[in-house]
Amino acid sequence: MSLLVTGTIGIDDIVTPSGHASRVLGGSCMYFSAAASFYSPVRLVAVVGDDFPDSFREVFARFPGIDLAGLEVRKGGKTFRWGGKYLKDMNSRETLFTELGVVAEAPPKVPDSYRDSSILFLANSHPGVQLGMIEQTPQRKLTVADTMDLWINIAKDQLLVLLRKVDGLVLNYDEAELLTGRPNSVSAGRHILEMGPRFVVIKKGEHGCLLVHRDGICSLPAYPTDAIVDPTGCGDTFAGGMMGSIASATPADPGSFASIRRALVHGTVVASYTIEAFSLDRLRQISRNDLEARFDEYASMVRI
Amino acid sequence: MSLLVTGTIGIDDIVTPSGHASRVLGGSCMYFSAAASFYSPVRLVAVVGDDFPDSFREVFARFPGIDLAGLEVRKGGKTFRWGGKYLKDMNSRETLFTELGVVAEAPPKVPDSYRDSSILFLANSHPGVQLGMIEQTPQRKLTVADTMDLWINIAKDQLLVLLRKVDGLVLNYDEAELLTGRPNSVSAGRHILEMGPRFVVIKKGEHGCLLVHRDGICSLPAYPTDAIVDPTGCGDTFAGGMMGSIASATPADPGSFASIRRALVHGTVVASYTIEAFSLDRLRQISRNDLEARFDEYASMVRI
Repeated sequence: MSLLVTGTIGIDDIVTPSGHASRVLGGSCMYFSAAASFYSPVRLVAVVGDDFPDSFREVFARFPGIDLAGLEVRKGGKTFRWGGKYLKDMNSRETLFTELGVVAEAPPKVPDSYRDSSILFLANSHPGVQLGMIEQTPQRKLTVADTMDLWINIAKDQLLVLLRKVDGLVLNYDEAELLTGRPNSVSAGRHILEMGPRFVVIKKGEHGCLLVHRDGICSLPAYPTDAIVDPTGCGDTFAGGMMGSIASATPADPGSFASIRRALVHGTVVASYTIEAFSLDRLRQISRNDLEARFDEYASMVRI
Repeated sequence: MSLLVTGTIGIDDIVTPSGHASRVLGGSCMYFSAAASFYSPVRLVAVVGDDFPDSFREVFARFPGIDLAGLEVRKGGKTFRWGGKYLKDMNSRETLFTELGVVAEAPPKVPDSYRDSSILFLANSHPGVQLGMIEQTPQRKLTVADTMDLWINIAKDQLLVLLRKVDGLVLNYDEAELLTGRPNSVSAGRHILEMGPRFVVIKKGEHGCLLVHRDGICSLPAYPTDAIVDPTGCGDTFAGGMMGSIASATPADPGSFASIRRALVHGTVVASYTIEAFSLDRLRQISRNDLEARFDEYASMVRI
């Protein structure tokens, strides 16, 4: 099934207890696409400025499954930039700076060649922009969105409209509480289903994830590891592995409980590599075979 | 295999966002024994004062698998009392008061009839007391201890001596960090193995548990639920289900990776009932059949 993703591509500055990285490739759409491309071709819709470094093109080249027809380079525009610092336990971070650049301008267009996409993933961006993408993909069979605390705080009305139009929502544990006012993730998940989606995936970082679906509940631990260098992009690559594996499996009902549950395992596995290095450095080194081997190892660690 | 547990029996005052309970039966040994007794007979070694309410005897009667030959009622002594308050998310609590009473005096003796016990669980108490119990159980084949932040802070030397004499340690996530200085649970677990034990079980409350064993790692989510009334005793009943199921299974090597891993599932299941009411109220209502049914439900929620 054809998978389309839209979100940010950016230039990140990151500080973690393990070290730091300056001006590295990042952004929700970038991380998602790289992860998804291990499983399925992925159509990318994003915009960067003409300051986007040529050297980053080499990173794209490492992930040939990413279709770049929807990458707009806007003349005179500035590429999105983000700086963040992780605290000692790697579970919490503070944003050092955000420079929206072209992300604050008109959103990129969905190319005509992408309009037949059957799976749409709306990586984290303004709910208004996410709604616009839905309108441009009339043949979609599965639509899943990510969001974040910023939009819950400043654009909740549009987010609630969005939630009535998507099949699934992916968000962090604390964001689920912020959206629902419920500190328990099962309760928060059930409340979000009442807002429209058929399922919600609550990401809990090192504590794994929880799927609350109209047809059941599934809880998975993260891959247990102490090889943690940089958590940036883990949530986006989790979503990329999840959605890419669904696109690859071409199930009759891609949003079914069985489909999503199986996909979460692939998301967990690819995210476990992301965290082992800064930016996309670790994902650039691995192959689908590595992912399969870790899938088996993970399965042996969590089977009961 | 014969299972012996020692720890506290107390009278608790508990406040949670769901309500409050005054002067209810509690204590690490009490919770552990009740949970373990679903799986195996359990020999209890604990001391209470002569203020111990007769009404609590009815609770004991509900768990006939608990052998009370090691319950000492000390004349003129005061029963251990604890008061605690849980915060909104139920994951953190503050101690309102602690009255050690008889727990601060000479520890109870292990009855002669218990000296042949093959499995010893040292529920949370002073490491010096725990060491004394080890000396009184010469035929033990598996020794597992629980501990807490208080002993790590004020009796770390004795705790380190204890760790060289036990097969396994069970402790909370934040306590593992306090003991090792390592905020990552895999890293903390590996560090604890260097202190002596063959395995460590790190309890993460609603996020499940992590087993770090010399022969492997296993991670399990908690039973996903929003039926949360009172988390008191969840960790102790988790340990009770774990150790009781090992005693029941009589494995050739009760401390093996396979044995402990299987036992964690039983611990998870019995703890999921504990949290549904104050004190032992929920455990008093259920049967082994309920535990088996939830075991199957849990397995279906976490299988990959």
